[in-house]
Amino acid sequence: MQDDSRSNQTWREALQAFDINADALAEFETLLSQQAKSHLQASERPGLSNQSKVEQCFYSSELPAQAKNFAEYSQLLGPAISGSVNTARPDFVGHMTSALPAFMPPVQKLMASLNQNNVKLETSGYFTDLERQVLAILHRCFFASQKGGTDRAVDDYYRENMHQPKQAFGVFCSGGTLANIMALWVARNRLLSNYKLAEKGLFGAMSAMAGDGYTGLAVLVSERGHYSLSKAADVLGLGRENLVAIEVDDDHRMDMAALRAKATELQAKGVKVLALVGVAGATETGSIDPLREMAELAGELGCHFHVDGAWGGAAIFSSQQRDKLVGIELADSITLDAHKQLYVPMGAGMVLFREPEAVNAIKHHASYIIRSDSKDLGAYTLEGSRPAMSLLLHAGLHLIGAEGYGALIDHSVNLASEFASLIQESEDFELILEPELNILSYRYCPATEREALEQALEQGDDSLVADLNQQLSDQTVAIQIAQAAGRQGFVSRTQLHLPHYGPSAIHVFRVVLANPYTRIEHLIQILEEQRTIAAKLAQ
Amino acid sequence: MQDDSRSNQTWREALQAFDINADALAEFETLLSQQAKSHLQASERPGLSNQSKVEQCFYSSELPAQAKNFAEYSQLLGPAISGSVNTARPDFVGHMTSALPAFMPPVQKLMASLNQNNVKLETSGYFTDLERQVLAILHRCFFASQKGGTDRAVDDYYRENMHQPKQAFGVFCSGGTLANIMALWVARNRLLSNYKLAEKGLFGAMSAMAGDGYTGLAVLVSERGHYSLSKAADVLGLGRENLVAIEVDDDHRMDMAALRAKATELQAKGVKVLALVGVAGATETGSIDPLREMAELAGELGCHFHVDGAWGGAAIFSSQQRDKLVGIELADSITLDAHKQLYVPMGAGMVLFREPEAVNAIKHHASYIIRSDSKDLGAYTLEGSRPAMSLLLHAGLHLIGAEGYGALIDHSVNLASEFASLIQESEDFELILEPELNILSYRYCPATEREALEQALEQGDDSLVADLNQQLSDQTVAIQIAQAAGRQGFVSRTQLHLPHYGPSAIHVFRVVLANPYTRIEHLIQILEEQRTIAAKLAQ
Repeated sequence: MQDDSRSNQTWREALQAFDINADALAEFETLLSQQAKSHLQASERPGLSNQSKVEQCFYSSELPAQAKNFAEYSQLLGPAISGSVNTARPDFVGHMTSALPAFMPPVQKLMASLNQNNVKLETSGYFTDLERQVLAILHRCFFASQKGGTDRAVDDYYRENMHQPKQAFGVFCSGGTLANIMALWVARNRLLSNYKLAEKGLFGAMSAMAGDGYTGLAVLVSERGHYSLSKAADVLGLGRENLVAIEVDDDHRMDMAALRAKATELQAKGVKVLALVGVAGATETGSIDPLREMAELAGELGCHFHVDGAWGGAAIFSSQQRDKLVGIELADSITLDAHKQLYVPMGAGMVLFREPEAVNAIKHHASYIIRSDSKDLGAYTLEGSRPAMSLLLHAGLHLIGAEGYGALIDHSVNLASEFASLIQESEDFELILEPELNILSYRYCPATEREALEQALEQGDDSLVADLNQQLSDQTVAIQIAQAAGRQGFVSRTQLHLPHYGPSAIHVFRVVLANPYTRIEHLIQILEEQRTIAAKLAQ
Repeated sequence: MQDDSRSNQTWREALQAFDINADALAEFETLLSQQAKSHLQASERPGLSNQSKVEQCFYSSELPAQAKNFAEYSQLLGPAISGSVNTARPDFVGHMTSALPAFMPPVQKLMASLNQNNVKLETSGYFTDLERQVLAILHRCFFASQKGGTDRAVDDYYRENMHQPKQAFGVFCSGGTLANIMALWVARNRLLSNYKLAEKGLFGAMSAMAGDGYTGLAVLVSERGHYSLSKAADVLGLGRENLVAIEVDDDHRMDMAALRAKATELQAKGVKVLALVGVAGATETGSIDPLREMAELAGELGCHFHVDGAWGGAAIFSSQQRDKLVGIELADSITLDAHKQLYVPMGAGMVLFREPEAVNAIKHHASYIIRSDSKDLGAYTLEGSRPAMSLLLHAGLHLIGAEGYGALIDHSVNLASEFASLIQESEDFELILEPELNILSYRYCPATEREALEQALEQGDDSLVADLNQQLSDQTVAIQIAQAAGRQGFVSRTQLHLPHYGPSAIHVFRVVLANPYTRIEHLIQILEEQRTIAAKLAQ
């Protein structure tokens, strides 16, 4: 009897948690908002020193048996909120996560309230239409020139094709990695469709492929390609070694002669080149490959041409930057991340396909959902059940607008250029690469070492060059670690291989400028902090 | 000059969009909340009849050049909100998306405000710890019996291992499909690690594999396996044909004799069985495979044993239902969807690995992030940048509690059982399967047809059986379509192959009971509606 009343009580409490009219709810929400706001507006970044203290909040593996109330829970969550990384700080310029438009959290709340599942119309309704529209809008930005001449013809083309079953201008997914996987999945299945690859698999198709003289498969990308491509090569069964990294020129762009030579060499050995991948905004350098030349070569090779524009694709919104992407309109597929320079919260990637019927290479159906005659997007996604993240980009497109996005891009590209000049003029830092967009890398390099390095290079003293670079790398890494552990500015670090500095990679600071609140003063301050740290480390 | 001031204006407006203290923001949020609330509380489901009207809101492919204000945008969004699928209705029982706890949208708003990226500590901070903790809590629910005897020993085991680099108890991902792909990716790479599969790929490794006598690869699952497994077989390069569907018994559970026979047959042919997949809560029938027997067979075969518990895994929280999952503790990996029966908004799946070092089969690094000595979860995920969806489950675990989740499961399992009895007692519907959990299927089958069918079966008149089943399928489909187009109850439909009804699949209604607001009265009403529709269709 007591047990019954206990279990009834538990049930009533659980049911109460679903009541959208509950009084306590508004208070809880206000509390969370306040906690978030005070964290985002704190003058200092949370330090790493108290990590072990906060980690203790997350050491119990015991399942909480009974429900906490809102007050208890927001108290429990307090340390996690105040210890979270303040990605909105104007001096947090080390990664691609920055401040968000203030309307995004409320729109994401709306998304959660409606809890649509965009896998199929039956659980998404008009949000499938909205997603198809957002994809068409972006597709048009990149591919309009390929889809008829006049504005009217382009309008008509999209209007007629946007909501058609059996095709899709692209697919939303949780991020650029899935987008890259999907692009190469489509490429693999299309190019090997003669061997019924989707059905038989690589092992099953191998004897027929070997019979046609194939000794292997490859995907070619520059050394600056994102690590997700290697993951894609693994998961797709192609093998990481068969993602072939091609050297870059001094501007970190694909070396076309090397690419052509490698492709020819591979084909001569019977290796089928499935895809060339062009990088539009490399993660480490912001550089953009010569996309038009790559598209032409892909045409000659008869392979897929994919552009990874997860970072740089957004430059299409800026009339000043757009030309840097020339050739992207020839891509078979383009990866974009809305959660990068389109300022959408984490979890929104896309892959666009120039030919909307390309997605049929990976289509699938299930009898209880996604019937073959419907316009469900779920037939063409790697994921199954999926949130309506397209709503967030829809909000961004309307509440910021194309011109607003353009202004945001221009601001950060201009800021990068200004910062690059500042580094070049400085005596103790070395700019590694003139930024093409808004990512730049530099390193600590005081005048004495710089002169010694120049001399060693002139004298061809490779061993001294290596020693000096090692010393500068060590200093740069030590500065980055100390600054990251502090409470103000944050830059990241990476390793780059620069041919003129010999065979070893050098360590550099990496700066990503996307936060519209970041001003040159913040960057000056970051350099000042680094100088102070360097001086301390030298003691 | 004018251009300059225009572009300055655009920039200022774009910048303003990022101001978290903007006055207009609260009003916008209130407006969206009201729109969502009035939609969720509407007495009728949005009809399909006005779809073309609302579609017109989503036909323009033109990029909005200038920003709209909040009022304009919420007006634009109005039709999409009111036309969205009200997945929270108690009589929306056709799919796995149901009402959510009311605290979830505010917590998801918090998640968006903090915008952590759980790929690496540098952009997630304590949210990586939180995610590791949530994974450990769930891992313990399933695998505690495998990790030491006493509570203290289990505590210690998790405390010591939870935050260790180079291992992970599991991985969050956007949903069950990715979880299934990751489980089979790990299985493939581990079992073929001798051939350096991750590096060389299937094509590259094939001659060595053929040299060892392998003629193919296979994954075995029952006919009730989710379609994502076929997608996984395709994307992993195994081939859809090599996902071998094994017949089920009368309860739609894996037929163990058939499974053993098929595995033996394949191995005799040189086909390596990579994995057996057990279903725990089949999408169409809710049935649970004999997991312990499958685990034993996987042990004999030396292959991976994966359990797809996307739907049914949550039964672990109920002391009444838990025993149905017996054997799941022997799985090498388990798929769970937090956005199903753990009532988290869309976009939260997980795969748990019994041995936390298993994830090393798919690990990857990148020099600018995810260094090999860090505890970053990004080294082990299929996705790259990733939202902190683990926060939502963390909130659920604390604000509903294990007992609360148990009560929710029990409620819907009991309701399913009650509804099943009701159908069995009815004269015009046929229960297809006694529900094991909270999914059931039935079809329209009036007394006259039922008698005729029974007679035909007795007389062994296969042709008449097929005709009658076809007629009942046609009626069931017509009723489902008409009801779905209406404004009240919604059930889905699927096709099931039932051996005693001959070789053709029959069409059935599919009901998924997870909404805690759903009462037997709603289900009675659904049957009444179906009767009314049937009567109309008969006219």
